[in-house]
Amino acid sequence: MQRKEDGYVVAVVGATGAVGREMVKVLEQRDFPVAELKLFASTRSAGEEIVFCDRSYEVEVLPTEPPEGVDIALFSAGGTLSKEIGEAWGAAGIAVIDNSSAWRMVSGIPLVVPEVNPLAAFAAFAHGGKGIIANPNCSTIQLVVALKPLADAFGIDRVVVSTYQSVSGAGQKGIEELSAQVVAMFNNRTADVNVMAHQIAFNCIPSIGSFLENGYTDEEWKLVQETRKILDLPKLRVSPTAVRVPVFSCHSESVNVQCSRKVTPKAAAAAFHQAEGLVIQDMPAEQIYPMPFPAAGSDDVYVGRIRQDPDDDCTLNFWVVADNLRKGAALNAVQIAEVLHEGPEEYA
Amino acid sequence: MQRKEDGYVVAVVGATGAVGREMVKVLEQRDFPVAELKLFASTRSAGEEIVFCDRSYEVEVLPTEPPEGVDIALFSAGGTLSKEIGEAWGAAGIAVIDNSSAWRMVSGIPLVVPEVNPLAAFAAFAHGGKGIIANPNCSTIQLVVALKPLADAFGIDRVVVSTYQSVSGAGQKGIEELSAQVVAMFNNRTADVNVMAHQIAFNCIPSIGSFLENGYTDEEWKLVQETRKILDLPKLRVSPTAVRVPVFSCHSESVNVQCSRKVTPKAAAAAFHQAEGLVIQDMPAEQIYPMPFPAAGSDDVYVGRIRQDPDDDCTLNFWVVADNLRKGAALNAVQIAEVLHEGPEEYA
Repeated sequence: MQRKEDGYVVAVVGATGAVGREMVKVLEQRDFPVAELKLFASTRSAGEEIVFCDRSYEVEVLPTEPPEGVDIALFSAGGTLSKEIGEAWGAAGIAVIDNSSAWRMVSGIPLVVPEVNPLAAFAAFAHGGKGIIANPNCSTIQLVVALKPLADAFGIDRVVVSTYQSVSGAGQKGIEELSAQVVAMFNNRTADVNVMAHQIAFNCIPSIGSFLENGYTDEEWKLVQETRKILDLPKLRVSPTAVRVPVFSCHSESVNVQCSRKVTPKAAAAAFHQAEGLVIQDMPAEQIYPMPFPAAGSDDVYVGRIRQDPDDDCTLNFWVVADNLRKGAALNAVQIAEVLHEGPEEYA
Repeated sequence: MQRKEDGYVVAVVGATGAVGREMVKVLEQRDFPVAELKLFASTRSAGEEIVFCDRSYEVEVLPTEPPEGVDIALFSAGGTLSKEIGEAWGAAGIAVIDNSSAWRMVSGIPLVVPEVNPLAAFAAFAHGGKGIIANPNCSTIQLVVALKPLADAFGIDRVVVSTYQSVSGAGQKGIEELSAQVVAMFNNRTADVNVMAHQIAFNCIPSIGSFLENGYTDEEWKLVQETRKILDLPKLRVSPTAVRVPVFSCHSESVNVQCSRKVTPKAAAAAFHQAEGLVIQDMPAEQIYPMPFPAAGSDDVYVGRIRQDPDDDCTLNFWVVADNLRKGAALNAVQIAEVLHEGPEEYA
């Protein structure tokens, strides 16, 4: 992608969804050099108006061919669409940053978290590259941001992770379902179940996505495969459990990580402290630790409850929280665009 | 304790609390041989009426001396009171079944889950026994009911457990706080925080109980110590994270367990299947797995999502749910009374 000092033509594909809307917000908040913004959605949502930098933009119907003049496209319109048109857009010279799972595990497609592996992004435009960079799954992003400093400082061998994922991970309709169920229950009516497999209000559902042959959900398996790919640790052992909880925004994760060497909570905190995009909230005596409700809308990944495994000098427990729509999706995608804008020299 | 065919004089101490009320319900539902029921509480709550077997009982002020004629006392009135008067009641010949944490880790005091170690209960009345049997913590009970069959069949070496604990674990006032906060938020008012350290509505709080020097909460440390004591595995490695979630009833736990031998999900399910008090809900394709909302009010411990660790033939992941007020507290206490009634021969 060519650096343009006077800004880029940026397209958001799936602009009316929960993540698409957040992408537009993040582009504005981070002052990304946008010369022109194009918003695309399905015919159902086209015609809606979305405000960006005090100007209202009409959402257009997604064209059948890659639009001319677009430099960067942020896709968040589902895996099927990304699979269908991603390559054509990439071949047309558009830098495609794709939030779906379609391309993440495809060999040769970079899977990028800017704090972790920014340089990998540029492979998308090298010989044989498709011009597509995949944005990882929300629960993976916050996990790898926390694991990276530990991997660098101590090496990591094994991760046991249990997630506490908010309903916004199921999109705008997930948010509406939790809200509607709570209202129904407090009015003595039956809570309708449409989006998730069961009632989520005042419940925990240990099932996100669909089940694989091996008994894991695809959401869990993303934690295994994407974590290995992003950290470039193909033999890392990851044992995941993904659970939906009745929280609107932000995912939380309980992480048990076995390092290659001895590690203390203090040494881990020092490693976390130096990491970009990571904020330590760990003053238990003052009841300070990361939580999803107060973290909503913020860009950082929060880590706390850092403590030694009771019986293993090489193993730690910690708790990590991030806004799944921002760092877990829209923000990470825009940060990838920022990496492309800044160029590989910045990250060498 | 002497077996009485025509029933026992049973006292419930702390009868007006969430667990105390549940104890009275469970005594009735399980048809425990109660010849006479005595309900005790602090002066603040004395005078309230509680119905047992279609008769209304007035709650009395707890006497300063152990009451005469009582055979069995179910205590759920906090650790301080149990510590203060438990021994005197036990010395007076009353079988004290104590739901507080006061006596659990005291050497010589049995800590009993009837499905796991029923015979241990009788040590309370052997030479040197204090007549006190401790009821374990809610999150421990459901964990050990699930671990016991695995320990027997395959041996267990290490457990990593993350909990999803309901607000009823904080008592009736925990239930009321979540409810009040939800109502406040849906009416655009500020949610008051009194019982828990932070707002629990639409939030997860990775802190239950108070923090210890080692960075764990006492709730987490109970999972370490009580699990070892009940399973009689003093070297078992347990690495716990305890989290409060916005659920009214039932605790859930994500468990990663490393066995001493190879184990498959099928073999584990066979072991679970034979265990008492344990129900397998594990048909992922039909979206059947344990969940807290539907489990409320039931007596069983539910286990599901049984699957092999991705990289270890000796390790499993599973998900376990139980009603913390019933199996996690009141039911387990009444089951201990049933064990005493039936006598050691039944369990030999």
